[in-house]
Amino acid sequence: MKTRTDYHWFNTKHHREYVRITDLVEESVAKSGVQEGMVLVSAMHITAGVFVNDDEPGILQDIDEWLERLAPYRDDYRHHRTGETNGDSHLKNIMVHHQVILPITVGRLVLGPWQQVFYAEFDGQRRKRLIIKVMGE
Amino acid sequence: MKTRTDYHWFNTKHHREYVRITDLVEESVAKSGVQEGMVLVSAMHITAGVFVNDDEPGILQDIDEWLERLAPYRDDYRHHRTGETNGDSHLKNIMVHHQVILPITVGRLVLGPWQQVFYAEFDGQRRKRLIIKVMGE
Amino acid sequence: MKTRTDYHWFNTKHHREYVRITDLVEESVAKSGVQEGMVLVSAMHITAGVFVNDDEPGILQDIDEWLERLAPYRDDYRHHRTGETNGDSHLKNIMVHHQVILPITVGRLVLGPWQQVFYAEFDGQRRKRLIIKVMGE
Repeated sequence: MKTRTDYHWFNTKHHREYVRITDLVEESVAKSGVQEGMVLVSAMHITAGVFVNDDEPGILQDIDEWLERLAPYRDDYRHHRTGETNGDSHLKNIMVHHQVILPITVGRLVLGPWQQVFYAEFDGQRRKRLIIKVMGE
Repeated sequence: MKTRTDYHWFNTKHHREYVRITDLVEESVAKSGVQEGMVLVSAMHITAGVFVNDDEPGILQDIDEWLERLAPYRDDYRHHRTGETNGDSHLKNIMVHHQVILPITVGRLVLGPWQQVFYAEFDGQRRKRLIIKVMGE
Repeated sequence: MKTRTDYHWFNTKHHREYVRITDLVEESVAKSGVQEGMVLVSAMHITAGVFVNDDEPGILQDIDEWLERLAPYRDDYRHHRTGETNGDSHLKNIMVHHQVILPITVGRLVLGPWQQVFYAEFDGQRRKRLIIKVMGE
C-alpha cells in the first residue's frame, strides 16, 4: 500500500472565494505513484469547504448567492457572543461539506466531463490549510 | 490490497429521478472479493448526486419537493447566460453531495436497517455515469 | 493493510442532540495501529448524521436552529402517511450528510485547529448506532 500527504495553504483576497484545485489533486496523485486507489481532499477548517462542480463563472456566482440566501450573514447568531462574526461561514461549511473523496484508476484521478474540484473559502483573508491524502497501490 | 472499479450508465425517464442502487453496490463488493475495506459510490456529473436514505416513496417525494423549495428552478441564474437551463440541478447536486463512501466488513456492504443507496438525477433524460470503486483486502 | 471496525450506540436524552465523538474516533485510530490511512465515521441511520465543526455551544445551537429553519418539522410530509412523524429528521440527515472520512498520518487522526467530529441525532431517545472503520497500514 502507498500513501502520500500534501498540504496547501490559501490566503484568499476576498472574504468568500472559490479556488479551483483540480491541478493540485492531480499533482498529488501523480507524485504518489498510486495506480488504483482513492484521494481525500479536505479543508482543515470549520469555515471552509471542498466541493466538486463546474468551473463556469456564472454557476460559481450562483452557488455563492444561493449559499448566502440559505445561510446568510446575520448579526444575531449565538456564536457571535464569543466575539466571532463568522456564524454564517460555519453554516456554509456544513452545507457544502468540508471534504470529498475521489477515485484513482490506472494512475489517474477520475473525474466526469465537467467535474472540477474547488476549495470553498467562507471566511478568508487569512491563512487556511487544505490536506490531500492519497491511498492505494 | 484489492480494488475493483465498475461504471454504470443511467438515462432516466424524468428530469429528476431517484434510483435505488444498493444492489449495484453490493454486486461490486461481492465481485471484488474484498473482505475488509470501503466502497466509493460517486456520480460523475455536476447535476446528479448520490445519497443514503430510506426507500419509502413518500420520503423520496418529500426530499424532491424540499430540494425544489431550497434550490428551485429559476430563469435568472447567471449560469443560464451560457445557454444552459439547469442551474438548479447544480445547486441540488451541492446540497445532497455527489458521493458516499461505505464500509465493507466480512465481505459485506455494511448498511443500517433502513439505509439504501440512491443515485439522484437532477438533470436526466440523457446518458449519465456513476462510478463504484471498491478498495480493501 | 490493516483495518479496524468499531460500533458505538447512542440513546440521546433529547429528540435532537449533537454529541462530540472526536475521542471515539481517536481511540479507534490508536487501537488500529494504522500509521497512514483514513477513517470513516458513519451514522447507520437515515435520521442521524456525522459532521465536523466547532465545539462551541453557540454555533451548535445556531446549526440546530438553522437546520430547523431549512428542514422544519411539518405535519404534512408525505412520509407521515406511513405513520411516521420524522420526515424532517430525514431531510436534516440529507443536509448534514451521514458520514465523514478523515486522514490518519503518523498514527494520528489529522484535524485542523478547531475541527471536532460530531454525531448529529435528529430523531433520538432511542438506540442508534455509529460505525467507525479505520483502513491503512
